[in-house]
Amino acid sequence: LYTEAGLCPAFFVFPHMIITFTDFGSSGPYLGQMKAALYSHAPDEPVFDLFTDLTPYDVEGAAYLLAAYSTAFPAGSLFLAVVDPGVGSQRAAVVVQADGRWFVGPGNGLFNVIGQRASSLRCWEIDWKPESLSASFHGRDLFAPVAARIALGAEVPGKEMDAALCLDESWPADLMRVVYVDRYGNLITGLRAESVGQSAILTCGGRELMRRRTFSDVPPGSVFWYENSNGLVEIAVNQGRAADVLGLGVGAPIAVV
Amino acid sequence: LYTEAGLCPAFFVFPHMIITFTDFGSSGPYLGQMKAALYSHAPDEPVFDLFTDLTPYDVEGAAYLLAAYSTAFPAGSLFLAVVDPGVGSQRAAVVVQADGRWFVGPGNGLFNVIGQRASSLRCWEIDWKPESLSASFHGRDLFAPVAARIALGAEVPGKEMDAALCLDESWPADLMRVVYVDRYGNLITGLRAESVGQSAILTCGGRELMRRRTFSDVPPGSVFWYENSNGLVEIAVNQGRAADVLGLGVGAPIAVV
Amino acid sequence: LYTEAGLCPAFFVFPHMIITFTDFGSSGPYLGQMKAALYSHAPDEPVFDLFTDLTPYDVEGAAYLLAAYSTAFPAGSLFLAVVDPGVGSQRAAVVVQADGRWFVGPGNGLFNVIGQRASSLRCWEIDWKPESLSASFHGRDLFAPVAARIALGAEVPGKEMDAALCLDESWPADLMRVVYVDRYGNLITGLRAESVGQSAILTCGGRELMRRRTFSDVPPGSVFWYENSNGLVEIAVNQGRAADVLGLGVGAPIAVV
Repeated sequence: LYTEAGLCPAFFVFPHMIITFTDFGSSGPYLGQMKAALYSHAPDEPVFDLFTDLTPYDVEGAAYLLAAYSTAFPAGSLFLAVVDPGVGSQRAAVVVQADGRWFVGPGNGLFNVIGQRASSLRCWEIDWKPESLSASFHGRDLFAPVAARIALGAEVPGKEMDAALCLDESWPADLMRVVYVDRYGNLITGLRAESVGQSAILTCGGRELMRRRTFSDVPPGSVFWYENSNGLVEIAVNQGRAADVLGLGVGAPIAVV
Repeated sequence: LYTEAGLCPAFFVFPHMIITFTDFGSSGPYLGQMKAALYSHAPDEPVFDLFTDLTPYDVEGAAYLLAAYSTAFPAGSLFLAVVDPGVGSQRAAVVVQADGRWFVGPGNGLFNVIGQRASSLRCWEIDWKPESLSASFHGRDLFAPVAARIALGAEVPGKEMDAALCLDESWPADLMRVVYVDRYGNLITGLRAESVGQSAILTCGGRELMRRRTFSDVPPGSVFWYENSNGLVEIAVNQGRAADVLGLGVGAPIAVV
Repeated sequence: LYTEAGLCPAFFVFPHMIITFTDFGSSGPYLGQMKAALYSHAPDEPVFDLFTDLTPYDVEGAAYLLAAYSTAFPAGSLFLAVVDPGVGSQRAAVVVQADGRWFVGPGNGLFNVIGQRASSLRCWEIDWKPESLSASFHGRDLFAPVAARIALGAEVPGKEMDAALCLDESWPADLMRVVYVDRYGNLITGLRAESVGQSAILTCGGRELMRRRTFSDVPPGSVFWYENSNGLVEIAVNQGRAADVLGLGVGAPIAVV
């Protein structure tokens, strides 16, 4: 691979990755059991955890994160996405194929933004059920086996349906609020940087924020916004915690001046 | 596998999984080193983390969790279980085989409940020592190499002993207290749902709690108990944090009315 | 391997492990993306997370931890180390080979202590750039592809340079402060136990602390110091949290009486 053109330029080039995207936490009993279930059905598929600490019940915020972060992965990747406050209710279980990527999870809006932005889109409602289905852990019992089988190339165990019936197309193109606070205290929003101008000024928490390229472009302690490494508007402080400096967290609204 | 009967019904069907069950945390230096040690001795065995954030020093609570959660895994699975406040003392290092599953870890009570519930049971005291054994990290130095070798089918490096000498059989069948608080604030107890009636009313923190099937069966904010996906009584609030609503955590007693 | 000499004595014997060492957190979007990037370039290399919760911006503390913890791994191991507050600035991207181990990451001091302690040492400045390089996530975009290729035996994509130009050799041999608080509340310092006498008394937070072998050698609640399983001086309380008992955290100074 060390050609004159250098290393392979894309950072994710291998197909058939399974990516988990959950609010399970990385420490407790849920993620490990779901990954053991994936392994049981598809032992050779690599699995990576994209987010494990999404905000519980915040399906909306998760939907905008998933749309932004999934595009970093190549066609053929499969996202096992579980933010599922309605588990055990009548909400559907769905599979979505969007621009060659697969998404498996609850039909509660989690894939609405994926659907909106897709050039090619197919949807299925899962009609398979495992013999033993718990009332509260469909990630392990239902979604993982289905995801594993799809990753192996099997047909979707369900009925294809019209995307307009499967996904709600009325959600806004961008979400004007904070959707995640990362370990550095940076405030990741549901707004794509490409949706605003290069010199856009944002307001958040009563402050006006200018765009900068990255942390080291401002003095320590300065608050700014920048396009993060997955294309979203992120509010940050160089060598500080924006969440603490601004006193804000998930849900805080932002606006473009 | 897509027969007319559908997907394979069991969620964990692959033997030879190694499952970690620790209070190490998922972030610091302990889990990664222990898994690297497992890998060094058994590079082809898959490893999953069931719990990494058990309450330090709460061997009792961990013992009831392990008994409840291990049965989700097939015979042939091996649990590397380390909640080990007495590391470096004279406590024994043990291997337990119970109903075809293997358990490796400290002989401090962690496998007492496993032993009680087993139909078939064997115990060994490990008498092997690595050349270099730290005083505080037997998970990496001692238990991981032993676990890896057993996973590969090797004989247990120790002396088989009477289960009654290895395990304390006097512990209660169920533990009437909270043993874990999950990421959603749900209170997982040491009581099996099958040990109480379908319409049992529990008390916890001065509240009487009714049984429900799952979260979506009650209005948001309601406190209830239900049988969780691994068979334990769990106290929960729909779209809320039971731990915060009740102001309770690990150790809080429960009772059946 | 069950010879008369027992199990293989070393706990890490397999070469070609890749070890991550970051301040990314184990839950958010960074670690998983970096590991997916590693996988894309070196799908057969095993990856373990040594630390994921290093203190953001504390390059100095991380440098002493890396030097202490990397020696547990065999020659041939590769450390992908990213504590990188200057990402996107002019700081160099470097590769260091020290005593047969590889280190890839920012040239910001993170490898200074590794360099000081090495018997054999080589340094390179990375001059390769991926086609698409984000301003804030070189772990995924730059360091992971380079690390993966080196793990596979490829040449370093950069210019070899004098170690004295690459690494600052003026740092003290040991760091007399707390560099990490583990899940048990133990205070891990940048001081090697071998650098002080067997009966050394330390002071920290106004207390004089005696050396003990391990936790179970003191009564519950006692504060002491001991040589931890990676050779560092660690301040601990048997069955308690030293960080809470002493009211100290990362940065707290220690001294030898």
